[in-house]
Amino acid sequence: MSMHPFASHPFDQALRHETLTPTRRRHVTSADYWNMVSPYGGITAAVMMQAMLDRPEHVGTPLSFTINYLAPIAQGEYIVETELVRANRSNQHWSIRILQGESESVVAQAIAICALRREVWSHVEAKRPEVPPAADCPPSPPRKPDGFLQRYEFRIVRGQPFRDNGDTVSQAWVADVPPRPLDFASLTALCDSFLPRIFLRREEWVPIGTVSMGIYFHAGEELLARHGDAPLLAVAEGQAFSDGHFDHHGHLWGADDTLFATTHQLVWYKE
Amino acid sequence: MSMHPFASHPFDQALRHETLTPTRRRHVTSADYWNMVSPYGGITAAVMMQAMLDRPEHVGTPLSFTINYLAPIAQGEYIVETELVRANRSNQHWSIRILQGESESVVAQAIAICALRREVWSHVEAKRPEVPPAADCPPSPPRKPDGFLQRYEFRIVRGQPFRDNGDTVSQAWVADVPPRPLDFASLTALCDSFLPRIFLRREEWVPIGTVSMGIYFHAGEELLARHGDAPLLAVAEGQAFSDGHFDHHGHLWGADDTLFATTHQLVWYKE
Repeated sequence: MSMHPFASHPFDQALRHETLTPTRRRHVTSADYWNMVSPYGGITAAVMMQAMLDRPEHVGTPLSFTINYLAPIAQGEYIVETELVRANRSNQHWSIRILQGESESVVAQAIAICALRREVWSHVEAKRPEVPPAADCPPSPPRKPDGFLQRYEFRIVRGQPFRDNGDTVSQAWVADVPPRPLDFASLTALCDSFLPRIFLRREEWVPIGTVSMGIYFHAGEELLARHGDAPLLAVAEGQAFSDGHFDHHGHLWGADDTLFATTHQLVWYKE
Repeated sequence: MSMHPFASHPFDQALRHETLTPTRRRHVTSADYWNMVSPYGGITAAVMMQAMLDRPEHVGTPLSFTINYLAPIAQGEYIVETELVRANRSNQHWSIRILQGESESVVAQAIAICALRREVWSHVEAKRPEVPPAADCPPSPPRKPDGFLQRYEFRIVRGQPFRDNGDTVSQAWVADVPPRPLDFASLTALCDSFLPRIFLRREEWVPIGTVSMGIYFHAGEELLARHGDAPLLAVAEGQAFSDGHFDHHGHLWGADDTLFATTHQLVWYKE
């Protein structure tokens, strides 16, 4: 088992693994990040992200990461496979898969890009909404008594679940529980912490499941380190609910207008 | 060579291929859709999309498609490989790669989902901006005398290239030249037709290249067929230019408020 710097945190426990070959690791699903019928999608993405970052060939920082969820991951062991598909001068292209069962069927697949960040003309055009600081927003009561919802603190500014908010714009301060310094794996996981948009329009619960999530990373290691374990402002907006799937796009902001990531996802809903 | 219904259209010519095995095709780059140092990214995405749709195992319509561009595709022959990674009851997960050269190095990789559309509660939340109909907007002069820019007609409503527009919001009617009935391949290609955001903020030309593009499809075959060969309204907005890469998210609309697709991409820029 490899040890991580904050090995006592449930998030780091969920990333623990046994190295089988340079490109294969064995993991075990985490009860701390369990969701209805599968691990929380954010922890699955984080596990795949970290597997890539731990490869010794890895260069630069994550730039783009897209994960498709193929099937529920059953409780128990699973395999993470990383493939460095191509290395260019300043970026790397990866493919990452999660396999499970005796037949090693694929249950998640991701493609990702790492790149060296360059000091060139830069400009954040998106605007962070003006909201009260996290400390002034009361934490929302946990939506569930166990599983991954216990692992995040949500301070909802706009967009309450299970009512028709008129639109699906949401603004919430989100943080790991207990607090944990931000890194690329936890940022990846946080990108899946958005409330499913359908629950911002409809009062009743319906079965849902993320089928695809994409992240573009706009910050390097220095900004993540400077951020520490403070909450992130997660802002998102749905675009369309169409014939069984809806999507949103969103932003993750620091307290100081740092845009850490833009993200988008597509979610299956039953009815 | 397989024949397509409109085989005389340059787009369909660009999709022509030789079947090597059930999962491999040989293509040749198209001069009609050539860009600076590689084919137009939209045609590359369309070729991969069509290769998936032509597989006899294929079920449903495209739901999500993400392509990462790994390296320029050199003029000449290349191979498209499709893998049906998993088939569930109502959706399919695919992986698609383009290989080139004697060593068959990977130059593009995509992951995609096809699904059966279901008649359930649906709602488009994004708003189509109120703009004049395409016929009332003059076509923009071609930005280049040859290559893929000749294959699209742009009627720019907002966001002129090579000036500082104050923001990177763009609205343009876009159509195939000559007109061609919309299908999933051409819709995929149109998702890459957005003006690179940096040219909406800065007057000078700088080298750029898309590194990742994602599409969520919100319309089924019936809506595409109903649309015919009319222009689509392409709307997009940049989010951040950070250390050598910028992103945008966008929408493709029909004339009648039909949301065909939402899309996002990440683009490398030199300085």
